[in-house]
Amino acid sequence: MSPVVTLTTDFGLTDAYVATMKGIILGINPEVTLVDICHTINPQDIAQAAFVLGTSYQYFPQGTVHLVVVDPGVGSQRRAIILRTSSADFVAPDNGVLSYVTREASPESTEGKQQAELVPELEAFAITDPRYWRTPVSPTFHGRDIFAPVAAHLSLGHTPADFGERLSSLVMLPLTRPHRDPDGSVVGHILHIDSFGNLITDITYQDLPSKGGPLFIKVGGQTIRGLVRTYAEGEGLLALIGSSDRLEISVKGGSARNLLNARVGDEVKASPQG
Amino acid sequence: MSPVVTLTTDFGLTDAYVATMKGIILGINPEVTLVDICHTINPQDIAQAAFVLGTSYQYFPQGTVHLVVVDPGVGSQRRAIILRTSSADFVAPDNGVLSYVTREASPESTEGKQQAELVPELEAFAITDPRYWRTPVSPTFHGRDIFAPVAAHLSLGHTPADFGERLSSLVMLPLTRPHRDPDGSVVGHILHIDSFGNLITDITYQDLPSKGGPLFIKVGGQTIRGLVRTYAEGEGLLALIGSSDRLEISVKGGSARNLLNARVGDEVKASPQG
Amino acid sequence: MSPVVTLTTDFGLTDAYVATMKGIILGINPEVTLVDICHTINPQDIAQAAFVLGTSYQYFPQGTVHLVVVDPGVGSQRRAIILRTSSADFVAPDNGVLSYVTREASPESTEGKQQAELVPELEAFAITDPRYWRTPVSPTFHGRDIFAPVAAHLSLGHTPADFGERLSSLVMLPLTRPHRDPDGSVVGHILHIDSFGNLITDITYQDLPSKGGPLFIKVGGQTIRGLVRTYAEGEGLLALIGSSDRLEISVKGGSARNLLNARVGDEVKASPQG
Repeated sequence: MSPVVTLTTDFGLTDAYVATMKGIILGINPEVTLVDICHTINPQDIAQAAFVLGTSYQYFPQGTVHLVVVDPGVGSQRRAIILRTSSADFVAPDNGVLSYVTREASPESTEGKQQAELVPELEAFAITDPRYWRTPVSPTFHGRDIFAPVAAHLSLGHTPADFGERLSSLVMLPLTRPHRDPDGSVVGHILHIDSFGNLITDITYQDLPSKGGPLFIKVGGQTIRGLVRTYAEGEGLLALIGSSDRLEISVKGGSARNLLNARVGDEVKASPQG
Repeated sequence: MSPVVTLTTDFGLTDAYVATMKGIILGINPEVTLVDICHTINPQDIAQAAFVLGTSYQYFPQGTVHLVVVDPGVGSQRRAIILRTSSADFVAPDNGVLSYVTREASPESTEGKQQAELVPELEAFAITDPRYWRTPVSPTFHGRDIFAPVAAHLSLGHTPADFGERLSSLVMLPLTRPHRDPDGSVVGHILHIDSFGNLITDITYQDLPSKGGPLFIKVGGQTIRGLVRTYAEGEGLLALIGSSDRLEISVKGGSARNLLNARVGDEVKASPQG
Repeated sequence: MSPVVTLTTDFGLTDAYVATMKGIILGINPEVTLVDICHTINPQDIAQAAFVLGTSYQYFPQGTVHLVVVDPGVGSQRRAIILRTSSADFVAPDNGVLSYVTREASPESTEGKQQAELVPELEAFAITDPRYWRTPVSPTFHGRDIFAPVAAHLSLGHTPADFGERLSSLVMLPLTRPHRDPDGSVVGHILHIDSFGNLITDITYQDLPSKGGPLFIKVGGQTIRGLVRTYAEGEGLLALIGSSDRLEISVKGGSARNLLNARVGDEVKASPQG
């Protein structure tokens, strides 16, 4: 059975950097199935890459190897790591790009931390053994010379411990969490804007202040009354629970990003009062 | 032999929605070969998706499964369908996105119809049996929870009747057809503009008014005399029969879209007189 | 073992042209592994395609078939060719798009030439035998009707001589080379600008005037003192040796293209004096 290796980078679509990594991987493991997750991450935007990976890795087969190269610190002292969870392996720089993965696997050990202390079920390893690398290693393209060959060897069945010593903590991004105001409102933020212009927030269905009662969503100076179930309902601006269980702001047949001139980080408030 | 599953969506290239569907498919059928047809369909542009699919599915191996998710009505009452033709299977919402496929398979039953009555050779089925779906089904992402798993199970050899009851008609887009003017001209429209800026029309070689005699193509206030055979011939604006047998307007070394400020839907006239 | 076929085109991401070629290839050889190198080459920009291919083909497995369709002369008298090197096969129009491959395989026979005389180790063949083509051949899409089926048959193990007669020369682009000024400076040019805005030059590490002594890089009216090792060092504008061993101009956390308003072809000077 061919193992799956996914790729997530900020390399864009106009260069051969991604293809180069794929060539290296296929040279080591010709049986691999390669899947692009996303290559249009904004240059060096670790938080965006963390989110995009964090909402998709769950849907891949058991044992998939996820290769992530959004790596502004390439060639510097930042570590290169393998993270093994109960369902998948991740190969990435230790810069926070695996924050959602780590938090989902171990919520209590990561809450509010800049370094996640790893629980026994989460095995992380430094990539330090040059046996599996291409030589010489270019200081500007570890994707090609270190990460790709390591991912390929992992897909052949090597265990993470073959590549370096075990780690006890990983770098975490400061992931936002909604908070509850004294008046019962829940205040969160836009985490991601998708290509339809939908605004995806850090407020989950569980976070909402009132499940049965009235609900008012306030964003960009507008107030939306209640939730709809699908993008096809209602008129104009609408709010719903999206496919990753997050509160999402949308416009029927249009773009909420454009209508509200919205940006990642903007505040979104869910209140029981209008 | 690994079956082919193609994907056509309006999900864009900046999110993980497409990758998520691929992960689901590979979890069900690891032997599948995945091919992207296009993911930059304009958001919710069913006609564009229908055209792009309609000019490419013919070139895939017998038995290919074509998965199409351009689905503004996701979660509403629109049906989800499987269409089986003599050469391929199609999995899509029943919103007209298979109009070219249906017309090509059964021209007489679709002409001018908003609902194509299906001839016996064209088998269509509603996707209604939740056995093959992911649960719970998100009302906003049937691509992930219904269409992708159904396409994967089809690629494993399930028959379309396993997924729901047989249908007798499908939704059709109002596909444009050129008409003939009293003066012998053929009047058609721009169906698609490709990334080179070539204008692809609904006028086929068969539709042209005069095969041997003089021919004048009128578009955007310009007149082009005669046809050339290749993009490399002539100077400036030129007309030729493109690779899908349609009249096409092009500019040598440039973009006809930009030169003529052309849009999909604009009129194109082919006349025996200048 | 599944052979690898790569694809490099200027077909963009909004049409089904690339997918059509993949469908044709999979119909002939279902076991092939397809890898996209790049499809966003500027329309008809042979030099850009030559560079992108020329910095990536080296990283693919032995025996890979590289299919390149950037072909402004499609349907005209330009030849279609197969080039076999010691490591890979290339299928392309004979318009210079294989110039870097040819130069790397045979530097002495190509220097300053518009036609590379082929040394015995480099086998090139015209694609002239219609047995392997789709019929009828569209004069506007040889990618689909000639190049894709030929690449697929090559991946099945056919030898290049099966497709046409052997050639003794190939078309070469006028590849720029840095020259040395009387004052000891090395003067080169920007060859490519990547999606991070990094400026990649035709000056290699070997070309640099002084390895140990002082070094000043002059570009776009700015002077950069010395080289750094990684993108993460220093501040603002920096120069380093990139992953394809070329002098590269970058901006930490930004875009050198934007900062310098740089274009492909602009001069870059490396001097021992400031």
